[in-house]
Amino acid sequence: MTILDGLPGALTDPDLLTSYRRDEADLCEAGQPLAVVRPTTTDEVVAVVKWAAQHGVPVVAQGARTGLAGGANAVDGCLIVSMVNMDRIVEVDRSNRIAVVQPGVVNAALSRAVAQVGLRYPPDPGSWETSTIGGNVATNAGGMCCVKYGVTTEYVLGLEVVLADGRVLRTGRRTPKGVAGYDLTRLFVGSEGTLGIITEITVALRPAIADPLTLVAVFPNTASAGDAVNRIFTAGLAPALLELLDQVHLAAIERYQPMGLNTQAKALLLAAADRTEDLDAIAQLCRDAGSGEVWQATDATEAAELLQARRRAHPAMEKLAMETYEHGGLIIDDIAVPRTRLAELLDSIELIAAKHGVTVGVVGHAGDGNLHPNIVVNRDDPDSVAAGHRVFDEIMECGLALGGTCTGEHGVGLLKRDWLATELGPVGLDVQRAIKTALDPANLLNPGKVLPL
Amino acid sequence: MTILDGLPGALTDPDLLTSYRRDEADLCEAGQPLAVVRPTTTDEVVAVVKWAAQHGVPVVAQGARTGLAGGANAVDGCLIVSMVNMDRIVEVDRSNRIAVVQPGVVNAALSRAVAQVGLRYPPDPGSWETSTIGGNVATNAGGMCCVKYGVTTEYVLGLEVVLADGRVLRTGRRTPKGVAGYDLTRLFVGSEGTLGIITEITVALRPAIADPLTLVAVFPNTASAGDAVNRIFTAGLAPALLELLDQVHLAAIERYQPMGLNTQAKALLLAAADRTEDLDAIAQLCRDAGSGEVWQATDATEAAELLQARRRAHPAMEKLAMETYEHGGLIIDDIAVPRTRLAELLDSIELIAAKHGVTVGVVGHAGDGNLHPNIVVNRDDPDSVAAGHRVFDEIMECGLALGGTCTGEHGVGLLKRDWLATELGPVGLDVQRAIKTALDPANLLNPGKVLPL
Ligand SMILES: Cc1cc2nc3c(=O)[nH]c(=O)nc-3n(C[C@H](O)[C@H](O)[C@H](O)COP(=O)(O)OP(=O)(O)OC[C@H]3O[C@@H](n4cnc5c(N)ncnc54)[C@H](O)[C@@H]3O)c2cc1C
Ligand SMILES: Cc1cc2nc3c(=O)[nH]c(=O)nc-3n(C[C@H](O)[C@H](O)[C@H](O)COP(=O)(O)OP(=O)(O)OC[C@H]3O[C@@H](n4cnc5c(N)ncnc54)[C@H](O)[C@@H]3O)c2cc1C
Repeated sequence: MTILDGLPGALTDPDLLTSYRRDEADLCEAGQPLAVVRPTTTDEVVAVVKWAAQHGVPVVAQGARTGLAGGANAVDGCLIVSMVNMDRIVEVDRSNRIAVVQPGVVNAALSRAVAQVGLRYPPDPGSWETSTIGGNVATNAGGMCCVKYGVTTEYVLGLEVVLADGRVLRTGRRTPKGVAGYDLTRLFVGSEGTLGIITEITVALRPAIADPLTLVAVFPNTASAGDAVNRIFTAGLAPALLELLDQVHLAAIERYQPMGLNTQAKALLLAAADRTEDLDAIAQLCRDAGSGEVWQATDATEAAELLQARRRAHPAMEKLAMETYEHGGLIIDDIAVPRTRLAELLDSIELIAAKHGVTVGVVGHAGDGNLHPNIVVNRDDPDSVAAGHRVFDEIMECGLALGGTCTGEHGVGLLKRDWLATELGPVGLDVQRAIKTALDPANLLNPGKVLPL
Repeated sequence: MTILDGLPGALTDPDLLTSYRRDEADLCEAGQPLAVVRPTTTDEVVAVVKWAAQHGVPVVAQGARTGLAGGANAVDGCLIVSMVNMDRIVEVDRSNRIAVVQPGVVNAALSRAVAQVGLRYPPDPGSWETSTIGGNVATNAGGMCCVKYGVTTEYVLGLEVVLADGRVLRTGRRTPKGVAGYDLTRLFVGSEGTLGIITEITVALRPAIADPLTLVAVFPNTASAGDAVNRIFTAGLAPALLELLDQVHLAAIERYQPMGLNTQAKALLLAAADRTEDLDAIAQLCRDAGSGEVWQATDATEAAELLQARRRAHPAMEKLAMETYEHGGLIIDDIAVPRTRLAELLDSIELIAAKHGVTVGVVGHAGDGNLHPNIVVNRDDPDSVAAGHRVFDEIMECGLALGGTCTGEHGVGLLKRDWLATELGPVGLDVQRAIKTALDPANLLNPGKVLPL
């Protein structure tokens, strides 16, 4: 007789437990779960949370485990609550432009469903084909079109949340506007499973739009690409997309799936705009910043291929790491700085990488000042891993010194806990803890994540 | 020797105290302040909050007191902290598209300052010429262009806040994106002075845009105007503005300042769009919904005049109330419903007004489903005032029954406290209280506002 007897549906097969241990954050600690449950209704979530509260068992909510900060990683002795079976699109309301979904709905499934009635759910993380809306909400996911259309939180109107004590909270509303009480909805958005388990989400939709026009511009160094970004914004333009890929990424993506990318280029900007005159202006500003080659996609298929190449950055870099070392690994960073500081940040990353003799590829949502330095390490060599972590820390330090934040979109999880303390300072951290304590006094929900121990 | 001796700069002149007692919410209770301070620096705010904490004196922050929910009203024995002297635009950063302002900066002053560098601060409450950014943030103000561009919270990147114990908290960041910890910024947005005093605000800006094209459509009844709104959204259009004025308002505005409005019309929609084809489509949908007359502004001046007429709704209705009764008063409501329920709501308001024999004019941000029923009462007649409050309550009940919220943009303040409890239910209210207690355990910041006693 174990405590698990009181928990119907608990899975404890050791292989299965192992498969639920971690998200996509490489080289990040993960504990050993006690059991996994896959509830299908809010009532079931209530029952498991009450059971956990009663037994003092930590609860870790999981979506598709595509997270890149270890937020969904098991903590020792925890109950994993996987939300993937709550994957129903409850409602798409065309006239009110809202959808109601369960948290396990995959981003792409929602996007496709609303496209059928001429609508659009803008937030588009690179993981959109696999990650869940619940995970997107819990991390406040960004994506490529966010430079123009904003991140996930901009689209969340209301939530159903199971609280730490098993009570069910409804936040927000179905109307476009509303100010009835504190904005609890946006408090839960980005809370990474530490304040409650999200069981239903009401999102705002937008009308479908025509595909934007797309170009690529090639640069002699990363800093000049950063400079181009700065010029584009200073000129008052509002690109629909503005992504950066450095040479490491171009080479990796081309090797992963050849498509004729210019792998000699030190950096590439992928830009899109809704109007021809804006795209022309962007092209000119790229040239002004030093781009030797600007090339415009002739149709939607070509444009889609370029986006697809951008989306392959992650698997391509994983492959690169594996080709570089027998047990290659990848530490993925995620910093954001004011756009005007991009060029400086890019230069510094190069210097830091060189200083430690570590391969660092940089990719990111340049229009948001949000970069992902991807650090290649050799798992078999503790010195290599240590050097990778030093690079990670120095880049973060540099990002903060430039007026940035330690995480633009991936979240804090386990990876950035200590950096959060540095970024927020003592008062900020205190208030964050006060909120956590108010909502989860026993610290059962995803303990050890987000807030430093 | 009084406790005020320890508070340099405290103003206690009785006439002055009276002038700081209340905001623009008519027929709403207000207490008697102990003193008024008008700090000019964050340090001064810290000092007065510490003083208040030490002496257990309630603190009420005030901006321009244009609020419409009694949120800025004095509570008995409170210290009024008027933020109007902290009115410096600290920085406008064109390339990063942000501005840093003190809370006392008037909305129009910020809008004009950023227009000089080709940028735009979209949130545009009707009170933009007088209300402060601090007040706008503390109420999460909406406005006319919010139907396309979103409300205040969408534009707040970071805050400096003096907490209840006098510590200074910095939230958020200067970057477009960031997910470092819980979104405290948006917790303070809309908190109506109950969680902290906002002393600095970093806002996101947008590039300037061309003036949209504007039309007015006249309807045989309010419900058909509501139906037109529904059709416009169902057709996938994204109007830049979509405002409703009923006959009571048209007549009042025309009387207040004649400009040739069709005062025979039962309802008027004011719509704008960025592209001719969209405005044409809106015109056609208005006709389909029963509009007998659609008239397009021929230039920006004409369009601006129409907006100006809309902005006169409030003073015009005040004048109407004063002309109707020697001591006429106006109870201003602010509900939002899903757009598809607008026509029903409008019909119900008419029925409720007729049932109680009370004049109710309706104006509002129809594209957001956000209406302001303005209830005319006779202050000298307790029966009239009581009837007005019954109308107010019945409209609110109806709005909630239609899936709406008790406040779309004005906030809860004192006026909607009890409706908040109804809307949120016991769990919601409990969590709201838990947040308040976590941040203001002694309940010194604007006590009695937002949360029911
Ligand atoms: C190839 C690739 C590309 C990516 N591109 C992007 C990108 O462009 N932008 C971006 O922001 N991220 C990106 N990511 C990171 C990741 O996909 C996002 O963080 C995503 O939102 C995670 O969703 P998920 O369903 O996988 O959640 P998980 O990884 O399972 O969980 C993430 C966090 O949310 C919590 N959580 C999950 N579901 C719930 C719930 N129902 N209630 C409460 N808490 C919950 C977990 O506890 C955890 O803390 C990428 C990842 C990969 C692998
Ligand atoms: C003619 C007219 C038209 C209006 N149109 C609109 C409209 O279109 N949309 C809309 O949303 N509102 C509208 N309003 C309501 C009002 O203008 C808004 O609520 C506005 O945001 C209030 O700003 P204020 O500076 O006057 O704040 P105040 O009325 O002084 O205060 C409002 C609330 O904010 C708090 N507060 C103020 N400053 C701070 C601070 N620095 N720190 C913490 N708390 C603070 C106060 O305690 C109070 O609870 C209108 C009002 C009028 C009179």
